[in-house]
Amino acid sequence: MAFINENYLKLPGSYLFAEIARRVNAFKEVNPSADVIRLGIGDVTLPLPQVSIEAMHKAVDEMAVKETFRGYGPEQGYDFLIEAIREANYTSRGLKVDSDEIFVSDGSKSDCANIQEIFGLDNVVAIPDPVYPVYLDTNVMAGRTGELGADGHFAGVSYLPCTAESGFAPSMPEGHVDMIYLCSPNNPTGTTLSREQLEAWVAYARKEKAVILYDSAYAAYITEDNVPRSIYEIEGAREVAIEFRSFSKTAGFTGTRCGYTVVPKELMAYTKNGEARDLRSLWNRRHTTKFNGTPYIIQRGAAAIYTKEGQAQIKELVGYYMENARIIREGLTSAGLTCFGGVNAPYIWLQTPNNMPSWDFFNKLLSEANIVGTPGAGFGSCGEGYFRLTAFGDRENTLRAVERFKNLKL
Amino acid sequence: MAFINENYLKLPGSYLFAEIARRVNAFKEVNPSADVIRLGIGDVTLPLPQVSIEAMHKAVDEMAVKETFRGYGPEQGYDFLIEAIREANYTSRGLKVDSDEIFVSDGSKSDCANIQEIFGLDNVVAIPDPVYPVYLDTNVMAGRTGELGADGHFAGVSYLPCTAESGFAPSMPEGHVDMIYLCSPNNPTGTTLSREQLEAWVAYARKEKAVILYDSAYAAYITEDNVPRSIYEIEGAREVAIEFRSFSKTAGFTGTRCGYTVVPKELMAYTKNGEARDLRSLWNRRHTTKFNGTPYIIQRGAAAIYTKEGQAQIKELVGYYMENARIIREGLTSAGLTCFGGVNAPYIWLQTPNNMPSWDFFNKLLSEANIVGTPGAGFGSCGEGYFRLTAFGDRENTLRAVERFKNLKL
Repeated sequence: MAFINENYLKLPGSYLFAEIARRVNAFKEVNPSADVIRLGIGDVTLPLPQVSIEAMHKAVDEMAVKETFRGYGPEQGYDFLIEAIREANYTSRGLKVDSDEIFVSDGSKSDCANIQEIFGLDNVVAIPDPVYPVYLDTNVMAGRTGELGADGHFAGVSYLPCTAESGFAPSMPEGHVDMIYLCSPNNPTGTTLSREQLEAWVAYARKEKAVILYDSAYAAYITEDNVPRSIYEIEGAREVAIEFRSFSKTAGFTGTRCGYTVVPKELMAYTKNGEARDLRSLWNRRHTTKFNGTPYIIQRGAAAIYTKEGQAQIKELVGYYMENARIIREGLTSAGLTCFGGVNAPYIWLQTPNNMPSWDFFNKLLSEANIVGTPGAGFGSCGEGYFRLTAFGDRENTLRAVERFKNLKL
Repeated sequence: MAFINENYLKLPGSYLFAEIARRVNAFKEVNPSADVIRLGIGDVTLPLPQVSIEAMHKAVDEMAVKETFRGYGPEQGYDFLIEAIREANYTSRGLKVDSDEIFVSDGSKSDCANIQEIFGLDNVVAIPDPVYPVYLDTNVMAGRTGELGADGHFAGVSYLPCTAESGFAPSMPEGHVDMIYLCSPNNPTGTTLSREQLEAWVAYARKEKAVILYDSAYAAYITEDNVPRSIYEIEGAREVAIEFRSFSKTAGFTGTRCGYTVVPKELMAYTKNGEARDLRSLWNRRHTTKFNGTPYIIQRGAAAIYTKEGQAQIKELVGYYMENARIIREGLTSAGLTCFGGVNAPYIWLQTPNNMPSWDFFNKLLSEANIVGTPGAGFGSCGEGYFRLTAFGDRENTLRAVERFKNLKL
C-alpha cells in the first residue's frame, strides 16, 4: 500500500490568497457593478523593461536556427547571466561572490521552498512572524515541525515575533535554533533590517553554527543608502548565510520567472558526527538532480537588465512603484492611519484602526471602499491587527484607492 | 549546529555525464585534431518548430505592453495550454483526463524528481535497471533507501532487471512494492512496454495498492500503432498511475523547458491508519507551494505545437531523428552488432561485442572511432554489456558515425 507524506495533512486547508479570492468573488456576485481596486496580491502591473523584450526576441530568433539553437544549458545558469549578476550585485559593490556560488533558477519562491531539502529533519527552524508563508509551509511539508496548535503555531518551530516596538525586526530566538529565515526588505511589513541588526544575526549564527536563509527578493526597492542590499555586506556572513534574489519585483518577471541563490563555499553544516560539509556542494547536487535550468530565452531577458540601458529602465520601473508607495503611505497617514514600510519596500503595513481584527478590516474595506488588501493575520499570528497594501497597482488606481481611504469612516 | 541531509552523502561522487565529459576532454587534450562525434547525451540539435518561434515572439510582444502584460499565472499552467494538451493527447484519443488533473511544469525532469515528495518515506520503491538516474537519485536524497552496496545497488530498493530475454521490459517485483517507476519509450534501452505488459503492471498496482510513476517523455517517438502512448489507455490506470510528459524531445524544448504531469482524481494513497487520500490534492499543494508556474512566453511556445501546422512541424522534427535512428540501427546491425530500440524511441541500445565491459567499449569507441556514446553501466548494473547511442545528432554526423562503426575492428 503506497503511503502519503502525512506531513501535508498538518497544513491548514485554505491558503490565504484563495480565501481572499473567495471573499472577493462572493462580494462581486452580490455587487456586480462595484469598482473593486486590488492592492492585495503582490503582483506587478507594468510591462517588462524594453531591454528584456529586445533580448528575448533575439533569443527566440536564435532558437529558430540550427547554428544558434540552444538545447540543455548548465543547470546552474549560463555564464553570461551569472557574470552579469556577479558584477552588478557583488563585485562592483566590493563583495566577494564566486561564479560557482551563484545558482540561477526559475524564481525565488522555488529556491526558498527547495533550500530546506539539503538540511536534516532534526534542525530547529526559526521563522519571523508575520512572514511570507512559503518558508514555514515547506518545512511543515518536509516534516521539520509538529502539529498546528490552537494558537496558530506549529509545534517545534521557533517563531520570531516582529512587532511595532522593534520596527518589525524579528526578535532573537530564546533558545538555540539551526535554520533562520530572514526577509529584508520584508514581505509583508515593508520594513528592512539595519546593518546592526544583520550583524547581530550573523554573530548569532556564527556562535550557534546556524545557517541564515536570507530572502532579499525586494533588494532593488531599497532607497536609503545605509540599508544593506546583501547580507554579504556583513563581515563573516559568507560562513553562515545563503542569499535569495529575484527578477520578479526587480524587473517585472513575476510571470517570466527568474531568480538566483548564492551559496558561499565557506558555508558549512554538519553531520550527526559533527563533520563539516559544505552546503554549496549539496545545493549543487540538488539543483542538478531536480532541476534542468532556466529557459535560455528567459536568462537572456534577465541578463539584459544589467546593461546600462537596462539599469536605467529598472530604476524607472522601481521608481514608479515606489512613488505609489509614497502616495499610499502619506495618504493613509493623513487619513489618520498608522503606516509602516513603503520607504525601502513596495509594501505598506497598516495598523488596523481601533485594533480591529484584520479579517474584519478586510471585510470593511471591501464592502465600504471596494478595496482589496491582505489581512495581516494571514502572514502569522503577530500580523493580527495589521493589514498589507501593495504599491504594485497602477498610479490612477493607487490615487483612487487613497481617496477612498480618506472617505472611509474609521 | 545546523545539520545536513545526510542522505546526500549516500550518492556516489561522480555523475555519469560528468565522467563522460572528463574522459572526452582528456582524450581531446592528447588528440586535439580528432574529429569527435557526440552521440552520448540525449540532447536535441534541430531548432524549435516555427510555430513555437512565432508564438513566443507574439508572447514577448504582449509582455511589452501594459494591457497584455502577464504577471503571476496559475501555478498549474494557463488554460490555453492545459486544454490544448488535454484535447490532443487525451480527449481526442478517447481518454478521460480532466483539466484540473494536468499540471504544467518546467519539464519532466523536475516532475519526476519532485513527485516522490508527496509520498511517505516508508514506501518501497521499485526502479527498473537500467534506467534514467533521476528516479533513484531523488529517492536516495529523500531518505527512501539505505546505503549503496558493493553490487552498485542501494539497500531497500527493489530493482527490476531489464534484460534482452524480456525485450528489456522490467521484471515484476518479487515481493510487495509501493512506488513503481516505469519509463516507456525507455531511456536508455529505446524499447517500449506493450499493452499486455502495461496491463500486468496496472493489475499489480491495483492489487498491491501501489502507485505507478509513468514517464512517457518520449511518447511522440512511438511509430508502431499497437504501442500505448499513454498509460491511461489501460483500463483502471486512472486509479493507480501518474503520467509524466515533456516538450523536450517532442518539440526540441530541452533548453526551453516545459513539461506536464497528470494526476487523476481517483488515484489514492494511504495514511498509516489506512485512510485513503487523493494524491492530486497533495500534488496540487506541492506544486502551488514550491513552484510558481512556467513562464507565460514558454507556455505559448508549447501550446503552438497543438495547432494543425504545429503538429505537422513536430511530425517532421521527430521523423528526422527517427530516420537517424533507422540509419544507426541498420548500419550497426550490418556491421555485425546486436542492437535494440530505435523503432519507437530515439535511443539505440547496443550490445557490446564479446561481452566487453561498457566503459571499456566507451574507451575503444572514443579512441578508435572518435565517437562518444554512453556506457550502459552508467544506467544501472543490468546495463553492463550495453551501450547507448542517441539519434539526436545531425544527419551528416550520424552517417559518418555509422561509417566509422563499419570500419571498427570488433
